[in-house]
Amino acid sequence: MATIGFIGIGVMGREMVPNLLKGGHRVRVFDVRPEAAASLRSHGADIATSVAAAVGGADVAITMLPDTSHVQQVVLGAEGILAHPPSGRVLIDMSTISPQATREMSAALAKVGVAMLDAPVSGGPQGAKNATLSIMVGGDGAALEQVRPVLAAMGTNVVHMGVSGAGQITKLCNQLVVGINLQGVCEALALGRAAGVDLGKLRDALLGGSASSWMMQNLAPKMIDKDADAGFRIDLMLKDLRLTGELAFALGTPLPGNALVTNLFLEARAHGEGDNGNQALYRVYDRLCNREVRRS
Amino acid sequence: MATIGFIGIGVMGREMVPNLLKGGHRVRVFDVRPEAAASLRSHGADIATSVAAAVGGADVAITMLPDTSHVQQVVLGAEGILAHPPSGRVLIDMSTISPQATREMSAALAKVGVAMLDAPVSGGPQGAKNATLSIMVGGDGAALEQVRPVLAAMGTNVVHMGVSGAGQITKLCNQLVVGINLQGVCEALALGRAAGVDLGKLRDALLGGSASSWMMQNLAPKMIDKDADAGFRIDLMLKDLRLTGELAFALGTPLPGNALVTNLFLEARAHGEGDNGNQALYRVYDRLCNREVRRS
Amino acid sequence: MATIGFIGIGVMGREMVPNLLKGGHRVRVFDVRPEAAASLRSHGADIATSVAAAVGGADVAITMLPDTSHVQQVVLGAEGILAHPPSGRVLIDMSTISPQATREMSAALAKVGVAMLDAPVSGGPQGAKNATLSIMVGGDGAALEQVRPVLAAMGTNVVHMGVSGAGQITKLCNQLVVGINLQGVCEALALGRAAGVDLGKLRDALLGGSASSWMMQNLAPKMIDKDADAGFRIDLMLKDLRLTGELAFALGTPLPGNALVTNLFLEARAHGEGDNGNQALYRVYDRLCNREVRRS
Amino acid sequence: MATIGFIGIGVMGREMVPNLLKGGHRVRVFDVRPEAAASLRSHGADIATSVAAAVGGADVAITMLPDTSHVQQVVLGAEGILAHPPSGRVLIDMSTISPQATREMSAALAKVGVAMLDAPVSGGPQGAKNATLSIMVGGDGAALEQVRPVLAAMGTNVVHMGVSGAGQITKLCNQLVVGINLQGVCEALALGRAAGVDLGKLRDALLGGSASSWMMQNLAPKMIDKDADAGFRIDLMLKDLRLTGELAFALGTPLPGNALVTNLFLEARAHGEGDNGNQALYRVYDRLCNREVRRS
Repeated sequence: MATIGFIGIGVMGREMVPNLLKGGHRVRVFDVRPEAAASLRSHGADIATSVAAAVGGADVAITMLPDTSHVQQVVLGAEGILAHPPSGRVLIDMSTISPQATREMSAALAKVGVAMLDAPVSGGPQGAKNATLSIMVGGDGAALEQVRPVLAAMGTNVVHMGVSGAGQITKLCNQLVVGINLQGVCEALALGRAAGVDLGKLRDALLGGSASSWMMQNLAPKMIDKDADAGFRIDLMLKDLRLTGELAFALGTPLPGNALVTNLFLEARAHGEGDNGNQALYRVYDRLCNREVRRS
Repeated sequence: MATIGFIGIGVMGREMVPNLLKGGHRVRVFDVRPEAAASLRSHGADIATSVAAAVGGADVAITMLPDTSHVQQVVLGAEGILAHPPSGRVLIDMSTISPQATREMSAALAKVGVAMLDAPVSGGPQGAKNATLSIMVGGDGAALEQVRPVLAAMGTNVVHMGVSGAGQITKLCNQLVVGINLQGVCEALALGRAAGVDLGKLRDALLGGSASSWMMQNLAPKMIDKDADAGFRIDLMLKDLRLTGELAFALGTPLPGNALVTNLFLEARAHGEGDNGNQALYRVYDRLCNREVRRS
Repeated sequence: MATIGFIGIGVMGREMVPNLLKGGHRVRVFDVRPEAAASLRSHGADIATSVAAAVGGADVAITMLPDTSHVQQVVLGAEGILAHPPSGRVLIDMSTISPQATREMSAALAKVGVAMLDAPVSGGPQGAKNATLSIMVGGDGAALEQVRPVLAAMGTNVVHMGVSGAGQITKLCNQLVVGINLQGVCEALALGRAAGVDLGKLRDALLGGSASSWMMQNLAPKMIDKDADAGFRIDLMLKDLRLTGELAFALGTPLPGNALVTNLFLEARAHGEGDNGNQALYRVYDRLCNREVRRS
Repeated sequence: MATIGFIGIGVMGREMVPNLLKGGHRVRVFDVRPEAAASLRSHGADIATSVAAAVGGADVAITMLPDTSHVQQVVLGAEGILAHPPSGRVLIDMSTISPQATREMSAALAKVGVAMLDAPVSGGPQGAKNATLSIMVGGDGAALEQVRPVLAAMGTNVVHMGVSGAGQITKLCNQLVVGINLQGVCEALALGRAAGVDLGKLRDALLGGSASSWMMQNLAPKMIDKDADAGFRIDLMLKDLRLTGELAFALGTPLPGNALVTNLFLEARAHGEGDNGNQALYRVYDRLCNREVRRS
């Protein structure tokens, strides 16, 4: 059983840590908001008051943070992991951040003998709670084997995608497809509704064949109900789409669909849907349809 | 068992007629290219020399034609179905055509006591051959029940979507999603390749979660192999995307994703991929990537 | 001086006919709405009760109608120009319609010895009133010389673009650029406003260099003022963008900008701006900006 | 007459410095490539061997560098302007860089009593050579008045746009419009060519009315000639479009046209046009058209 320093107790981290504890690991948690970390005391976590305190002497450090700059600060900052590496000399970054920045941090850590694995996840808060996350891993294969039992406590599907950054790249490809498939569902529902077709029947028909997708299966019902519940939020999706666009630009790869969808998510946010789940993308369309129906 | 007048023996019709014959129906076929119709004689079909000869005295007429104008000619032309309706007074149009034109023809036929069902299919030549087509039906429910055994000889999934045109609308929504999901797969593969990730592993990882789709499952492998085999052809997809765009424009529904994808399919056709299957959409990207790789 | 049969008295026709009369021509007008034609009696026009009556015995027929189907009916209909051609055997179609349909009508008219010129205009109701229209002409050069004095009474800039259809093609290229340049102005104003720059100063700066355009000069001030006055209406622009898209599709030319802009105009119409001038495209953006500002 | 420390001797800087010298100013130049700076010795410039040496004791520092990171290094680096400010306490940054980064640097410099003006230019190498640049200035008005004679030696049109960053924002709005207007010209030429219209006549017709723009006037002729000469390069335009996209994203402003055009420029670069002038955007289209023409 491992001793883990876990940095970042947000909507994901607070579901993941209890599973690590259930798996028999010892976990020391740190968050810049002390109350976020404190909430895990009752689950058996130790509360650390700094990154160094959480990570010092641990077998492995895990970061689960909102964006590239936060990971950079926790890794490269004066009080960070580069200066105070874990005894086990492995860092698993489970955040979704820039693959380029990942590679730079990985190279810096390698110089002090620390292996950094990028291990972003899919499955959302629900997958985190149920320990059914998909985990896409980039970095050294031996380091992955060393920490595989730790990852196994949080997810059911751990895939080694390649060298440092490959996990992040895979995650960004995933999000790109998610965004585009969502837009496809929105447009089909918008057109079907404007044309007077029953949306439930439409979804059933489309699920039966070549238009089928995870999004059609799982989010179309929420869209049809105009559900605005949280889930994976528009604002978080925007962060991932931005990272995808930045990677594509740096590589010189045109991604017109990703660019279009990024703008449609921006539009949804401007319509006040940023805190709502991705299914809210359809609410913007729906309001447009309503207005149109009213006019004609 | 029914007597059927079947108009239009193309890549779909030539697979569908044998299944009707196997189902015990009598089939009289007509095509403007006599040799196309003649090929079905050995399967037991009767060869008619005109629309009127195929349809006269039949229980049901079936049309399976390339585009709106062909159906209009067969239905509304001087020697057509409106002038020479089948005795059973039901027309099943299984082509993918304009829903608006469908409704106009349906209204004209109704005046002479003929029920027109729009019943476009998904599943392609393979589904036609295996009698596993999905059939999306619009029009009168009683007429549908009357001909259901005929449809059952060709497909496994017959869904009544609503009034006249609802079948075509559903089909166009399906194609819209197909086009957009295809583009999503293309962009993920293009980005993954440019970033140096193994494309087979990438597909596997994406199939495991929220980016999963029929297209990722079925066409991504062909894309990765740069397969250009026929299948559902780029040129035919362009026809469907055009019909979708026309319907959306007429209804005042903005469909930015459909518009983008239509242009990308046009680009693929301009690159000489019109006769290749939809998976060829990726070949254009791939050439771009190669060139980029070469340069950098 | 010529005798002219003028068909179509809308917002353009009612400004153009008085200029023909001032130029010394005799004009017989017809419109399906008799009151529209009657309004020109006081200017000296004769009122005809049918197309045939307006055109019969005239030196030249002129059509100025909303869309392709209207011109087809006036030309090809039982009581139309093909059946009742003008004595002078020239038809000038000044509507903006499909170039393909233009060529079909031109060929049909040529068989009865009538030359059809396509001569769409730019300049709007104001240009029509001031007789300063730009007129883009396709068709036979000799026929153009024959009617040049007639065109000169309505416009200052008459250009022979080539064979039949070339006038319409030029007009559609013009509208394509107009739509895209408008979107450019919208985006600059939206970004400038969101970033807190004075929009009047921004326009002045952009007019001084490579971002300058007729749209920046003429419509940006109306956009900044959120002017919704009529002018060239969103709904009419949508018709032209649709014709452009159809031509491009038929030719296999990808026009991603035109496709994007068409969808943004559809969106503006869905927001209730269809009857407002093109500058209203910015009002949709502006409302989005306001909302954003409110939220942050 | 002022003593000026000028940092960055690229295609722009090497044209601007001689004009400063002609204006009677004393100029000390520095570039990381010593040979670039040395080339100006014959014009009368002093060659400095560090930023500090160029700027120390000067009345004003000027930076003209490729991208945000270069300016940050020159300003914030250990040997930079923040640590070694000019005696005159004014920095004019004439690069095109991030407005957000500009504001951060401006705030940092303000703390040591240095006013930073952002003063990006339009007009290109030709405008730089002829001292006819348009200069868009953000920052303190008093500082602008202090250095106005220096700016007047390089440009004819110096506009004060507002507070720090307003110059950069204006420049990015300019580039956004430039990119979109270019795409409009490309699409009109591509459609006109595919439809068989003479492109020279088409341009003339469009220049006469609402489709007119600086791009139609100046770059359409080069596009028609498939000119690939340098000018403002595709690669540099991509940098500006990226900055525009980043600003828009940060402000939550959807810019679908900018996003589309950015991808089309990426595509042009992937086609090997990165080092060519912006007019090369059309070459990609043209090759597509040729291929299409060949096929049909």
